[in-house]
Amino acid sequence: MTAIATSARERMLLAKDAARSVGLLSDARKRDALLAIASAIEAAAPRIVAANAEDLERGRERGLSTALQDRLRLDEPRVAALAAAVRDIAALPDPVGRVLDERELPNGVRLTKVAVPFGVVGSIYEARPNVTVDIASLALRSGNAVVLRGGSAAERTNATLVEVMREALRALGVDPEAIQTVDDYGRDGARELMHARGIVDVLVPRGSAQLIETVVTESSVPVIETGAGVVHIVLDASAPLDWARDIVVNAKVQRPSVCNAVETLLVHRDAAARLVPPVVAALREKGVTVHGDAAVARLADGVVPATDEDWAAEYGSLDLAMRVVNDLDDALDHIRRYSTHHTESIVTQDDAAAERFLAEVDSAVVMANASTRFTDGGEFGFGAEVGISTQKLHARGPMGLGELTSSKWLARGAGQVRP
Amino acid sequence: MTAIATSARERMLLAKDAARSVGLLSDARKRDALLAIASAIEAAAPRIVAANAEDLERGRERGLSTALQDRLRLDEPRVAALAAAVRDIAALPDPVGRVLDERELPNGVRLTKVAVPFGVVGSIYEARPNVTVDIASLALRSGNAVVLRGGSAAERTNATLVEVMREALRALGVDPEAIQTVDDYGRDGARELMHARGIVDVLVPRGSAQLIETVVTESSVPVIETGAGVVHIVLDASAPLDWARDIVVNAKVQRPSVCNAVETLLVHRDAAARLVPPVVAALREKGVTVHGDAAVARLADGVVPATDEDWAAEYGSLDLAMRVVNDLDDALDHIRRYSTHHTESIVTQDDAAAERFLAEVDSAVVMANASTRFTDGGEFGFGAEVGISTQKLHARGPMGLGELTSSKWLARGAGQVRP
Repeated sequence: MTAIATSARERMLLAKDAARSVGLLSDARKRDALLAIASAIEAAAPRIVAANAEDLERGRERGLSTALQDRLRLDEPRVAALAAAVRDIAALPDPVGRVLDERELPNGVRLTKVAVPFGVVGSIYEARPNVTVDIASLALRSGNAVVLRGGSAAERTNATLVEVMREALRALGVDPEAIQTVDDYGRDGARELMHARGIVDVLVPRGSAQLIETVVTESSVPVIETGAGVVHIVLDASAPLDWARDIVVNAKVQRPSVCNAVETLLVHRDAAARLVPPVVAALREKGVTVHGDAAVARLADGVVPATDEDWAAEYGSLDLAMRVVNDLDDALDHIRRYSTHHTESIVTQDDAAAERFLAEVDSAVVMANASTRFTDGGEFGFGAEVGISTQKLHARGPMGLGELTSSKWLARGAGQVRP
Repeated sequence: MTAIATSARERMLLAKDAARSVGLLSDARKRDALLAIASAIEAAAPRIVAANAEDLERGRERGLSTALQDRLRLDEPRVAALAAAVRDIAALPDPVGRVLDERELPNGVRLTKVAVPFGVVGSIYEARPNVTVDIASLALRSGNAVVLRGGSAAERTNATLVEVMREALRALGVDPEAIQTVDDYGRDGARELMHARGIVDVLVPRGSAQLIETVVTESSVPVIETGAGVVHIVLDASAPLDWARDIVVNAKVQRPSVCNAVETLLVHRDAAARLVPPVVAALREKGVTVHGDAAVARLADGVVPATDEDWAAEYGSLDLAMRVVNDLDDALDHIRRYSTHHTESIVTQDDAAAERFLAEVDSAVVMANASTRFTDGGEFGFGAEVGISTQKLHARGPMGLGELTSSKWLARGAGQVRP
């Protein structure tokens, strides 16, 4: 037990040590390192797929659901997609060294605030093995070392991916200790990672709401909270039918399993008779089950009665909760109570209502007349997405590479002292 | 016990509720609120001084040291200084609503990233009662509600200051619930504040290293860590004597009790014989006790032998640890081991050494040829200082009002959906 614990810690210390040299790598060297990783992954595809087959075999024996098996599976095309994603990250501009602020004191001391790597980025995540390569590449591109803790279901796959990435770094003369896994230390590894304050600079959990809650509650390392999305759309009194229908259907149906998909629809009383029947019909046509309150049920067919649990549900499926509200205040109250502060959108032609909604809703992304599916690092033009922060410290909303950097102030003087 | 706990929580919920209206106040209203607070504090000076006298009396009975009694004391001139500090904060530009980023998606959706208040700022701090007014004013100026937990030694003073500030807000029609204290709930109040995740958005501890460590370790609310400063100055081989002497004496002597005062001096071996004798003499002349290693002791008189504990000491007094190092690498190793990542400075005429030091030292502020005493929000031109962050998430180094804001993305569309 102690031996294991010591060893997970030692790996994290190796990462911390490697962070010094990785943090000083030039843009070109970091790009080359990622391109080498991409090629190494492609070349090692048979080895990766074989390791993944072992995980899948074990998963089947243990009764892993078909959905989870699919998330876990890496075949040759998926390995090729992994390598392509690494090349995309390699092509992004270096976030390190950006000048964030400049000042000159009256005494001539020059101050420059520059972006610097965090040092060591930790991540705790679940089965999907692409996260292993994704987080490691994002961390490295921004000059950070990384400590990974993936789900046990993908243990062999993740171990192989880490080996392949480390070999690629070693071959290039970049310190391979910059990529570490604590997977082989089981729960102790995760626990040590959450308590490695002073070694690991920031922890990014990725996975279920429960995983994120555990990390946020237990960790003494600063955490960037990502993910959970009980996302609302409000159809205001003046909402045009075509916008309302298109936005709601798009936000629910285009990819129901992701965090920016809408979960609850609030309809202004004055528009209910006009909008509820056609919007519900359009949703049902796409296979959506509408969980509605009594007012919704009166206006449309095939509505399942909603319970209080529906208002808090992050379905992740073709289900949608739907309520008629008295006015904008009522809608704002509902959102305040149930929102996870991810994304909310209003459909309206009333500029004052739109601006009030934008000002008063306390979420990472607040929209007027657009689909909530736009809350995405790729859509925002960040090129890659580290996650979507639903907290207020450091980063809020879609996070790009820049959010994996901190800053420091450089002061250049000529002997100045404080009077 | 439960009744008390419930009630501290209720105050925090009142703050959360008040945060909504305070967050929407205009620049002018927030400025007026602070000016009203300043006037109210001046008008209530006799009441504040009387409450403070009670705290002082109790402190004397309990054997509070004279130094702590002095920190606790509020006389009429100090109350006037408090009011003046609030007026300074009132005069600062509003950090809310600043446009931090703007983008237009190819489909025409306009994205604007704006600065918004956090919501509720919590602070846990020690005896100095000026922090009560300072944090409340900074929070309010940046559109936040605040929950305060001061030291029990200042309980009566803090309660009176909070009353006075709340009365000023009420008279102006601003929700007085925006300023809360949980002091009357004792340790339970502090504990509830540290676990009020979802109600309190950020916690800023101010006080001793031990207080900060407790908050960082225990809190599930995100913390901005401030303060501890084991600050280093390196005298490189090429350091000019006058710069070296002026900077070291200024950094140690000008105000030894603060976190940006130097604690350890590292002297390059090749400059030791030239610099150690006059620098030690200048320090001793100012009453500084030099705790030196054997090499320092050989070169100068009156040096107290340093132990390992000296390298980790944040003296806060006229004491300085001093060591001769073999070269810049040796100095960087020492700093890596003992620094609290606050501020370090090198004195050198070698540009390459300066740039290497600036790049490799992992601290909030890294200097070449300037006194570490410049690490200060006022000196940096921020107008006010929330604290000096020694962590890497959200804020690093001196924090101004802007660091008490988060951001959100506003998206304005015309019916766009994601293809």
